[in-house]
Amino acid sequence: MGITRFTNCSLALPDGSLRRSDLFIDTDSGKIISGQAHFFSTRQPVDRTIHLQGNILAPGYIDAQINGAFGVDFSSIDEGDATYLKRLNEVSRRIVETGTTSYVPTIITQRKELYQKLLPLLRPRSAPDGAHVLGYHAEGPFLIPEKKGAHEESFLLDASQGIKSWEEVYGAAALDQEGVKIVTAAPDVEGVLECIKPAVERGVTVSIGHSNAPVDVAAKAVSLGASWVTHLFNAMPQMHHRDPGVIGTLGAQDESQRPFYGLIVDGIHVHPNAVRLAYDCHPEGAVLVTDAMSLMDPRLPDGKHEWRDGRYIVRDGLRLYIEGTSTLAGSAISLDHCVRNLASFTSIPLSKAIQCATWNVAQMLGGDVAKRKGALLEGRDADLVVLDRDGFLQSTWVMGKEVYTL
Amino acid sequence: MGITRFTNCSLALPDGSLRRSDLFIDTDSGKIISGQAHFFSTRQPVDRTIHLQGNILAPGYIDAQINGAFGVDFSSIDEGDATYLKRLNEVSRRIVETGTTSYVPTIITQRKELYQKLLPLLRPRSAPDGAHVLGYHAEGPFLIPEKKGAHEESFLLDASQGIKSWEEVYGAAALDQEGVKIVTAAPDVEGVLECIKPAVERGVTVSIGHSNAPVDVAAKAVSLGASWVTHLFNAMPQMHHRDPGVIGTLGAQDESQRPFYGLIVDGIHVHPNAVRLAYDCHPEGAVLVTDAMSLMDPRLPDGKHEWRDGRYIVRDGLRLYIEGTSTLAGSAISLDHCVRNLASFTSIPLSKAIQCATWNVAQMLGGDVAKRKGALLEGRDADLVVLDRDGFLQSTWVMGKEVYTL
Repeated sequence: MGITRFTNCSLALPDGSLRRSDLFIDTDSGKIISGQAHFFSTRQPVDRTIHLQGNILAPGYIDAQINGAFGVDFSSIDEGDATYLKRLNEVSRRIVETGTTSYVPTIITQRKELYQKLLPLLRPRSAPDGAHVLGYHAEGPFLIPEKKGAHEESFLLDASQGIKSWEEVYGAAALDQEGVKIVTAAPDVEGVLECIKPAVERGVTVSIGHSNAPVDVAAKAVSLGASWVTHLFNAMPQMHHRDPGVIGTLGAQDESQRPFYGLIVDGIHVHPNAVRLAYDCHPEGAVLVTDAMSLMDPRLPDGKHEWRDGRYIVRDGLRLYIEGTSTLAGSAISLDHCVRNLASFTSIPLSKAIQCATWNVAQMLGGDVAKRKGALLEGRDADLVVLDRDGFLQSTWVMGKEVYTL
Repeated sequence: MGITRFTNCSLALPDGSLRRSDLFIDTDSGKIISGQAHFFSTRQPVDRTIHLQGNILAPGYIDAQINGAFGVDFSSIDEGDATYLKRLNEVSRRIVETGTTSYVPTIITQRKELYQKLLPLLRPRSAPDGAHVLGYHAEGPFLIPEKKGAHEESFLLDASQGIKSWEEVYGAAALDQEGVKIVTAAPDVEGVLECIKPAVERGVTVSIGHSNAPVDVAAKAVSLGASWVTHLFNAMPQMHHRDPGVIGTLGAQDESQRPFYGLIVDGIHVHPNAVRLAYDCHPEGAVLVTDAMSLMDPRLPDGKHEWRDGRYIVRDGLRLYIEGTSTLAGSAISLDHCVRNLASFTSIPLSKAIQCATWNVAQMLGGDVAKRKGALLEGRDADLVVLDRDGFLQSTWVMGKEVYTL
């Protein structure tokens, strides 16, 4: 196709503003290009112009915490590698319907043996016509038992051998190279503080979560390089005013010592007013996540759905209950819905909410992702979403190719 | 003395900024005047010019929550009315050493009979050469037992008769006229919600405190006219992310529904990071209070001090312990120190912290106070403090008269 120009649109910029401007992409390289440079080098018009009727053109969304979706549970490898990869491709193909063009499959604490089986399957990969898998988010097993949440306590480990303990679980190669993209760990677990610096040096984003750490220990983790807080408010103590704990790191006096933080903005896991309090404290750090599980599928009807071990889950809108209980069984929200909710709960412009699912996520992930994703800048991957003024998805593009349209 | 001009100074303005400017006061009327109007009406130079050497000139501080100071406990009337008033004057005379030019003596929950004895003593009054008493802050008795803090549970009451219950305790006249300036009550106590509107209509500031209210009940109280939260974080549940409770009102989507909130910024009652989190969420609502008790006296040495009922309190810097325990026995911080702490904990300019002890307090108190105090505006009372660039007090002025100098 060559060069495509998007016109009559507003671009969602890294600073959370909108700018009325055209965008040029090269559909062969799959990159955003400079329209001016194209014209002066070729003296040719573009190959195709797409009129967006005043809609918003934004970077594709990036989900850094997602346990499953569209019927697939990323932790389940029972049916073999080939089936697993086929299903992963299916998720990548479907998830673009929700505006997500990159995601980091998240595995909650497993038996130690399982990690090295899962890791090779979750290396960064791009499905044809689908979203990118950016690597692997290991949520556990170095978590504090008191804040285990839904994690299996008998699988939790300490890191008494320092980074060796992490290498034993995740594998040295996976930590060193792409593969493990994020590790969520509790800095109050023995040895975890010592793991942070070496892991960050290898390109891993270390996130604080499932932790009882007092604020000084959490702040120490941040000073050592931890740069995210996993699902803020959940699986950590409530903010006590005498020791505000992990949440208190958002109030660090030195702003460079305030971590990014994940927010599940489904209106259920975190109350709208609490969302607003967190966002207002530290807007640059907000990262929207779905924390979705296999039942996340905007097309799935309400009612009873088979889950695992012969148990059923009841879906009631965005709520997922374990049948016969009132226990929330994870989230069923899509990332585009989280963006709309954040704008609505906090009264910020939609473009500011978009920033929390694009630019902020890429910055938090760092490295190659920060260079390639999350912004409509020349040279970056042409992963795009077209949204109406209310944030409803019109189309999704991956590497310059339209992969979904309403 | 006539007209005094302050020059070579920066004025602390209502919006928290500083402006290099002169200020003119009329020492006869005790008011701030327009220098220009003076000159054009009299064609006379001013009677006195005071050079402030680049210091900050700010409105006098207003303390809306203070239980005692300089050896005096505002709740104790054991030694008769004359002695009580003499001691109150003594506090007013001394407290200007801390920059406070107005205060609202605060009475924690007492036996019902005591209120009507105390009330006539705490009508608004101005001591010679001292700070103004603006009325009375009744912290209780309509509080929830579960969050009673240091309040005596057997004295707590419900308001099942609505505003009649309040009239029975405080007296209808005191509620109607000056006298009761602030009532701290828990909206989750029976009948309290029904009291808010009639009390606010009579000029009382209703504050939410010592409460277990879920966020919807707290928000209801605000919508009915409650405009303050008493010592945020203390005597209320920690902010739970599913129901952020009283604290959650600071995150109301409609900013007009976010109340003012009191902060004890002694670095002990509330962790510096929690102070920063609250301030960053809702800076316009921050109101500094000392919540001081009788041992508040910057000149009081560390060590053991007689308290009450034969018990002793140990002072260790700003900490006050009940002897033989680790129980904090209230605060010993002065308001000028709170201002410096807030600037330091949050990295805001000193002038923004000054706003939280002047303009914001006057707005929260409303009525006559909002018209007369808290701002360096023409026609307002010439209650002033001169501060160096670090917020240390140089001199204090009440109604145009210098009442303290370093």
